[in-house]
Amino acid sequence: MPKISERGMIVPASPIRKLTPYADAAERKGVKIYHLNIGQPDLPTPQKALDAIRQLDRTTLEYSPSQGFLSLREKLTGYYSRFGINLSPEEIIMTTGGSEALLLAFLSCMDPGDEMIMTEPGYANYMSFAVAAGIKIVTVTSKIEDGFALPPVEEFEEKITPRTKAILICNPNNPTGYLYSPEELMQLRDIALKHDLYLIADEVYREFVYSNKPYMSVLRLEGLEKNVIVTDSMSKRYSECGIRVGMMVTRNKSIHDTALKFCQARLSPPLLGQIVAEASIEGTEEYSDECYKEYLSRRNFFMEKLNKIPGVHSPMPQGAFYTVAALPVDNAEAFCKWCLTDFRYKDGKGLQKEDLEHITGETIMMAPCDGFYSTPGLGSNQVRMAYVLRKKDLERALMILEKALEKYNNL
Amino acid sequence: MPKISERGMIVPASPIRKLTPYADAAERKGVKIYHLNIGQPDLPTPQKALDAIRQLDRTTLEYSPSQGFLSLREKLTGYYSRFGINLSPEEIIMTTGGSEALLLAFLSCMDPGDEMIMTEPGYANYMSFAVAAGIKIVTVTSKIEDGFALPPVEEFEEKITPRTKAILICNPNNPTGYLYSPEELMQLRDIALKHDLYLIADEVYREFVYSNKPYMSVLRLEGLEKNVIVTDSMSKRYSECGIRVGMMVTRNKSIHDTALKFCQARLSPPLLGQIVAEASIEGTEEYSDECYKEYLSRRNFFMEKLNKIPGVHSPMPQGAFYTVAALPVDNAEAFCKWCLTDFRYKDGKGLQKEDLEHITGETIMMAPCDGFYSTPGLGSNQVRMAYVLRKKDLERALMILEKALEKYNNL
Repeated sequence: MPKISERGMIVPASPIRKLTPYADAAERKGVKIYHLNIGQPDLPTPQKALDAIRQLDRTTLEYSPSQGFLSLREKLTGYYSRFGINLSPEEIIMTTGGSEALLLAFLSCMDPGDEMIMTEPGYANYMSFAVAAGIKIVTVTSKIEDGFALPPVEEFEEKITPRTKAILICNPNNPTGYLYSPEELMQLRDIALKHDLYLIADEVYREFVYSNKPYMSVLRLEGLEKNVIVTDSMSKRYSECGIRVGMMVTRNKSIHDTALKFCQARLSPPLLGQIVAEASIEGTEEYSDECYKEYLSRRNFFMEKLNKIPGVHSPMPQGAFYTVAALPVDNAEAFCKWCLTDFRYKDGKGLQKEDLEHITGETIMMAPCDGFYSTPGLGSNQVRMAYVLRKKDLERALMILEKALEKYNNL
Repeated sequence: MPKISERGMIVPASPIRKLTPYADAAERKGVKIYHLNIGQPDLPTPQKALDAIRQLDRTTLEYSPSQGFLSLREKLTGYYSRFGINLSPEEIIMTTGGSEALLLAFLSCMDPGDEMIMTEPGYANYMSFAVAAGIKIVTVTSKIEDGFALPPVEEFEEKITPRTKAILICNPNNPTGYLYSPEELMQLRDIALKHDLYLIADEVYREFVYSNKPYMSVLRLEGLEKNVIVTDSMSKRYSECGIRVGMMVTRNKSIHDTALKFCQARLSPPLLGQIVAEASIEGTEEYSDECYKEYLSRRNFFMEKLNKIPGVHSPMPQGAFYTVAALPVDNAEAFCKWCLTDFRYKDGKGLQKEDLEHITGETIMMAPCDGFYSTPGLGSNQVRMAYVLRKKDLERALMILEKALEKYNNL
């Protein structure tokens, strides 16, 4: 029997989804699970977008252009201009989610053996795309005691080798919710220019910034036009994660043209998703305002209650809809798994009568954080939580977390 | 300015799409182009599938499972059983088109520097996915004078090195239309077993077989269960290329689990596409029969007329909906480009009056074949043509091809 590839052996199971089999088993036994593990918003997709797909007027669902529909890319230039970003449609490639945009950026900038520097904790799937592309991720650690701020630039410079080709950031950050300041972005710009590196920025949470300051995209950094690649997605901002429509944006024509050759090989991005995406962009300002207010209110509500749980500490996120929390346990993964396999909250107080009839208990699912670090041992007491549920559910999930911690620490 | 990657420099522009800028320019000038270059069927998507999407009853378009919906995979086991292939839903991963299935197979079986043997001419995008994955494609040449039959197995064995990990076939073949016989498949089985190689088979044209014999999938090769990976797609069989839904099928659990880890990183396959796909599978037998008859009839019609053009030779394809033709020109790419940039057929005879009002001339677009070969110089007088258009259009396209050849060879 032939062997699987070495990269297949080192590619990590997603920390967001690796406990899913335990969750599925619990759900089959009638356990209600509050999913804090995944950034799957429960808000509705814009009505306009749903209408567009229900009124589909095509008889053949054919390939779209490899770079995506021009009409969609044109509308996106309007969207970006609201953030002070001036683009032409030729600087945007439509991708199969932000995921594909990341892989395209990696493939276009780097070869097997090349290195990319990112901060840890970082979005775990970056690691998987890097493994797919054969590139090596080198991490600089951001610390919970600093609120996950950008580590000193010296730490980046220490990690630069002749194989270093790029720095990757996520802003606002998944999993920490940290929002980089314009000063921090300028520091990254200076390193990128000094060492001739790409700056790849995942900006999918651009709308979700709670700092009362305008969002600063790396696409606005002067002098860095040829070094910047932004990966982006419709998923979170319009609660349409399932359509798989994202974008790779760059003003570097060589990178654009290279990425497009990889895109031609996969023929086209999803047709139906692009129809939904196009209908989502314009005339949805009210929708976006409401989503924003809802997330802001959930964040404030969630963070206050979370930090009141004895032994729990989580810095206030300034963006996105995640937070990293240190829990009073040694091994957060073991605790998260135990919550799914062993712990059942059984006091039905506060639940609706119809809910009670169907459930045998309640518990929570969180993403253990060690998978967001590449340095072994770091983050072992941390979890990532997404505050994308209704407040009522967030409140109940945190109450259950408190009970679970009490019980776990008295086993 | 940082450099693009080396793989970005060697990844080929798709031979199917690389002439697109010239076609776009011609179309902007009112030239009507018959697109023989791309396998984009003009048949309608099944009505049931269109209805399913128009009746979408979701309010949030959320992520689906990384391996795709279970209900869809269950229906697919029924589909496969019609071809004598017994599968469980756990042996199927839903992918973003057959394209992603190929990349997943490559990533799971091979590491950068590993080698994969395939026949040339071969589907050009295999080369791009191989470049993305950092693997090396080694080719064995199938010849037009042999009707593109499987080359002698000795030629495969000669190419095997310690880095060889897989053999890749496309059956029925794109671009040649060749259908491998059970005996040829047995020969490949024996090589795969003897040298402990994966046999990756792209079977997206499984329904389009014109030999009057049952289709033989590599999934039915006994003793090869752990070596076989099939990549598959809904695109062609239901005329729904745009939905981007395909499958990776394997009974090798290690490969399945490895591919699934890469799938978790990209979160999920397209949600809306899966809804269309699920509605396409059952209760569409009549649709499939009609499509089959239509393609059979188009093939017969097209091939007879094509081989009557002076100097043109193309072996009769037994499957898929492509054929490779040798043209009486030295450089088929130059000829294909000239058809788009210079040649305009201007006799409106046979066109509808309303067509005539909008067009300034007619021409054809074909895919030059050198991009389907990796050996330099091979296929330079060949083109790939897809017979996916209505007979009326195919007839006119071939008439225009004959006129274009006449003129080109008298320049």
